[in-house]
Amino acid sequence: MPPPPVIPATPEPDVRVREVGPRDGLQSIARTMPTEAKSRWVAALAASGLRTIEVGSFVPAKLLPQMADAAAVVRSARALPGLTVAALAPNLRGARDAHAAGAAELVIPVSASNEHSLANVRMTTEQAVAEARRICAWRDALPPGPRPVVGIALSTSFGCSLAGPISEDRVVGLAVQLAAGGADAVHLADTVGYANPVQVKRLTARVRRELGPRLGAGHFHNTRGQGLANALAALEAGVTALDASLAGLGGCPCAPGATGNIVTEDLVFLLESMGLRTGINLDQLLAARAVLAAALPGEPLYGHLADAGLPKGFVYAARES
Amino acid sequence: MPPPPVIPATPEPDVRVREVGPRDGLQSIARTMPTEAKSRWVAALAASGLRTIEVGSFVPAKLLPQMADAAAVVRSARALPGLTVAALAPNLRGARDAHAAGAAELVIPVSASNEHSLANVRMTTEQAVAEARRICAWRDALPPGPRPVVGIALSTSFGCSLAGPISEDRVVGLAVQLAAGGADAVHLADTVGYANPVQVKRLTARVRRELGPRLGAGHFHNTRGQGLANALAALEAGVTALDASLAGLGGCPCAPGATGNIVTEDLVFLLESMGLRTGINLDQLLAARAVLAAALPGEPLYGHLADAGLPKGFVYAARES
Repeated sequence: MPPPPVIPATPEPDVRVREVGPRDGLQSIARTMPTEAKSRWVAALAASGLRTIEVGSFVPAKLLPQMADAAAVVRSARALPGLTVAALAPNLRGARDAHAAGAAELVIPVSASNEHSLANVRMTTEQAVAEARRICAWRDALPPGPRPVVGIALSTSFGCSLAGPISEDRVVGLAVQLAAGGADAVHLADTVGYANPVQVKRLTARVRRELGPRLGAGHFHNTRGQGLANALAALEAGVTALDASLAGLGGCPCAPGATGNIVTEDLVFLLESMGLRTGINLDQLLAARAVLAAALPGEPLYGHLADAGLPKGFVYAARES
Repeated sequence: MPPPPVIPATPEPDVRVREVGPRDGLQSIARTMPTEAKSRWVAALAASGLRTIEVGSFVPAKLLPQMADAAAVVRSARALPGLTVAALAPNLRGARDAHAAGAAELVIPVSASNEHSLANVRMTTEQAVAEARRICAWRDALPPGPRPVVGIALSTSFGCSLAGPISEDRVVGLAVQLAAGGADAVHLADTVGYANPVQVKRLTARVRRELGPRLGAGHFHNTRGQGLANALAALEAGVTALDASLAGLGGCPCAPGATGNIVTEDLVFLLESMGLRTGINLDQLLAARAVLAAALPGEPLYGHLADAGLPKGFVYAARES
């Protein structure tokens, strides 16, 4: 059994950091991490105080063999106290499987770019929206008992490497449509690292005005080094959750050297330095990085805090009593 | 002769990016770049549209042998049209030498941390402030003709790896004292990568209230990955100039893997994406990166834009007619 996670002193952090490395990170690299190593890594992440972890994708194994063991990873992660186990599912079939395995939170990808939607999930954006609506209807019709939270990852919200710029009106319209269709949260995702802080602030504020508490996490890739600046802009526009990947695991086969998501440990350091409580212990997060490094020897790991260490006199954000 | 630099269509950019790689970058690595290579690199930087470049330090060669040729580099850089040639000088002797070589802008380091000041320039902070005042008095007494602009790099303004946290009142007080002593600009420097955006915004706004247009550039290191987020915060607090180093050249012998200044090309991409005109051409900036790479083979270069490239449909910030 993994050690029990640290339960932070405060019930709810100022910013909820959603770890997506075991899903977005692992599915972006060529190698497959063994199931047992994934479970060990997820346990180490949870032990640092992370409360939501996307542990896998429920997609056909022939498309993403790295994710073939998603059900097993979900099941082992469910044993970790205090953890919300999240999983990605591109369709109703995947959603059912994720729910059956015990995922408490489902993430449904809907791409604002029709081109990207077709390339990513073989559906038009319109079809993906309809599929999300079906998933919400299925969720609503589940027999009494715990029902999964349904979040939408609204991909390419800030631009698309296939289609170029994406209309903000279109993104806002899709977010409204998805929330009306029953989604509990709409996460605005800069899937390909195209966003800038002005755009992030403007679009996030617009979606927040329309969706209120159904505005989900900001999801930024650090492809052009701008990830944490975009995260800051999203915070200023009112998001209270941010996705990140330990060691920035991931990348993009189309852009050599391009990193994946923003780096969890650098983000947590930034937030705590700014006085925003995350409930996450940085030493334990760096210990989870060592677990990752041992499981994927030679894989490029990103981030600065691991090398530089904490500043002299660093203090975590104050916990109000 | 190097090719003439591109003169941007607008006379003044929205944000002035000050390139410090040939000074801060080169003095932070062990190798010495040959004078001819420095001059070629500076010319390539200027050709991209950079208008201010710190090309060297006027310090004793036995302390920093990498900078022994500062006068020669200044002299060659002076031939580049439209370029403000800046140089660092820790004392009056260095300032005289830099002026004699033709530097139009002097950067005088004054550390807010007394411990850092002693380690860096062998003067207490108080002595360094007095030296800065002497330099301003000397400048004021120069015979008629072009006089150098005197800027102060107020080091460790956001914290010190020797002393830990630095009182903001102390930083504001020093900035006021230095401006009163004749400094044209006070640059707030996060020398060791300790700053966070909340702190940057608060302290920069305070100094701006006191100094008005004498608030100089924001100078951020990317030691913990937070550099561009801090740059964004500084912009929001009213700075109109930012220091950066091409390819993030530099580092810190005390922190393996810790990078140097924020990366010029990533910063320029961020600013232009945000609609802020820099007058800098990114393709030419990446060409300057190639010049740097050829001059220092094997040296670690940082930054993301060089690998990822520009987004599809990227446009520079609009030039108003």
